[in-house]
Amino acid sequence: MAKEFSLPIRVYYEDTDAGGVVYYANYLKYFERARTEWLRDIGFEQDDLIGQHDVIFAVRSVNIEYLLPARFNQELIVITSIAEQKRASIHFDQRIYKNGDDTLLCQGFIRVACLEFSTMKPRAIPEMITKQLELHL
Amino acid sequence: MAKEFSLPIRVYYEDTDAGGVVYYANYLKYFERARTEWLRDIGFEQDDLIGQHDVIFAVRSVNIEYLLPARFNQELIVITSIAEQKRASIHFDQRIYKNGDDTLLCQGFIRVACLEFSTMKPRAIPEMITKQLELHL
Amino acid sequence: MAKEFSLPIRVYYEDTDAGGVVYYANYLKYFERARTEWLRDIGFEQDDLIGQHDVIFAVRSVNIEYLLPARFNQELIVITSIAEQKRASIHFDQRIYKNGDDTLLCQGFIRVACLEFSTMKPRAIPEMITKQLELHL
Amino acid sequence: MAKEFSLPIRVYYEDTDAGGVVYYANYLKYFERARTEWLRDIGFEQDDLIGQHDVIFAVRSVNIEYLLPARFNQELIVITSIAEQKRASIHFDQRIYKNGDDTLLCQGFIRVACLEFSTMKPRAIPEMITKQLELHL
Repeated sequence: MAKEFSLPIRVYYEDTDAGGVVYYANYLKYFERARTEWLRDIGFEQDDLIGQHDVIFAVRSVNIEYLLPARFNQELIVITSIAEQKRASIHFDQRIYKNGDDTLLCQGFIRVACLEFSTMKPRAIPEMITKQLELHL
Repeated sequence: MAKEFSLPIRVYYEDTDAGGVVYYANYLKYFERARTEWLRDIGFEQDDLIGQHDVIFAVRSVNIEYLLPARFNQELIVITSIAEQKRASIHFDQRIYKNGDDTLLCQGFIRVACLEFSTMKPRAIPEMITKQLELHL
Repeated sequence: MAKEFSLPIRVYYEDTDAGGVVYYANYLKYFERARTEWLRDIGFEQDDLIGQHDVIFAVRSVNIEYLLPARFNQELIVITSIAEQKRASIHFDQRIYKNGDDTLLCQGFIRVACLEFSTMKPRAIPEMITKQLELHL
Repeated sequence: MAKEFSLPIRVYYEDTDAGGVVYYANYLKYFERARTEWLRDIGFEQDDLIGQHDVIFAVRSVNIEYLLPARFNQELIVITSIAEQKRASIHFDQRIYKNGDDTLLCQGFIRVACLEFSTMKPRAIPEMITKQLELHL
């Protein structure tokens, strides 16, 4: 079973809209922060991946269900795990909970492709990353 | 066949990221602007819907495919049509093209629920709206 | 006296916050859209300036007064004029009004520097731009 | 001398633009996060201030100097202190440094007014807050 990576995120005014809740596009920011911190956690900085390894990850598709609204000043927990790992892409399962109880607010299935930064063409995920993924997940 | 509503949108610096392209969450802003202008086009202002009719629309799910990146200063066209209309929700087909050619950059399938603003509970879409929808789409 | 450039902007959900008004950082997006459209209006596309002329403009300082809040679904007018033009920078006066009456909501004084894109060092504003500025403003 | 409150902030893709640096409006988000965490640190949650005490803070003006760009994936430190405390407003000094060295990237002087939430009219800062401010700053 896939290990899970957990990231707490606070809701600030910038995240909310006049409906009093987190604006629907901003959950995608939370998901990306979590993927970035997960990658950092297993040893990879994305600016180094671009600069030293000519590797960048790009989102190819998102499927997101909005179940319950997150509100101003709440603390959320973003749970990230790998649903499927392929040669040149990773499928992430990501869920956002309200911290302090088990209320699931939002869940996403996000497909990310590995690209050569210089050409923006698909490439295999570097072995140094897949090895770390196998160790950690 | 469903009629289509077309909205031109310009890409500004605010929309892009350090990868040089429109940040993936920001396409959801474009989709929402297009749904808002489509609603205005058939005669409904969302602030009036809230204030006078206790009606608000909330996004329940999004399925988005990112095909090709949009870039700084490009003009885009957002095409919106209704894929399915139900008693208390509308399913939108939305696609973003680069203006000037037929390049499809991003397509989304967005499900929007009709809520009573005061309680945030689901309610039927008001008849005044469904009637206009039938006339226009 | 400086001529004024006028840009209408609609307030969408993305621009507002849980206080029910436009989030304070987002007025800077409106100001930038207006400066971009003003530059386009006098004949310059910023992606061409970067790609063909190695020229980019960068904001050096902003002084902004928030007088009255803008609200969801309002149409605003951004008025832009040049307060002062120097060898390597332009000082803009920008004001945001509610469309339909003369209510001033927000005013900004924004200083923008001209940089060489390849080095990010200050450079003189190209003569082709200053000439157009003199013609139009 | 005013005590300083320090908040680390990571730069994510969402914060950057096609120029490769943090978009100028987004520093205002960082400043607001820091003011929010400072208020939390001295014992006040803004949602409680609104709900229980009918108090909200609104930004009246910002003066911001952009000295050097922050870049993707950098860790920043936002330093917040009170420049001046008045009966119904607080003037903040806020500075953003690159973490790990002493490079000052951005400095802001932000004036925040205390309002009655129900009427949005200016009111004196509640004594419970001014007392905490005196203790902590």
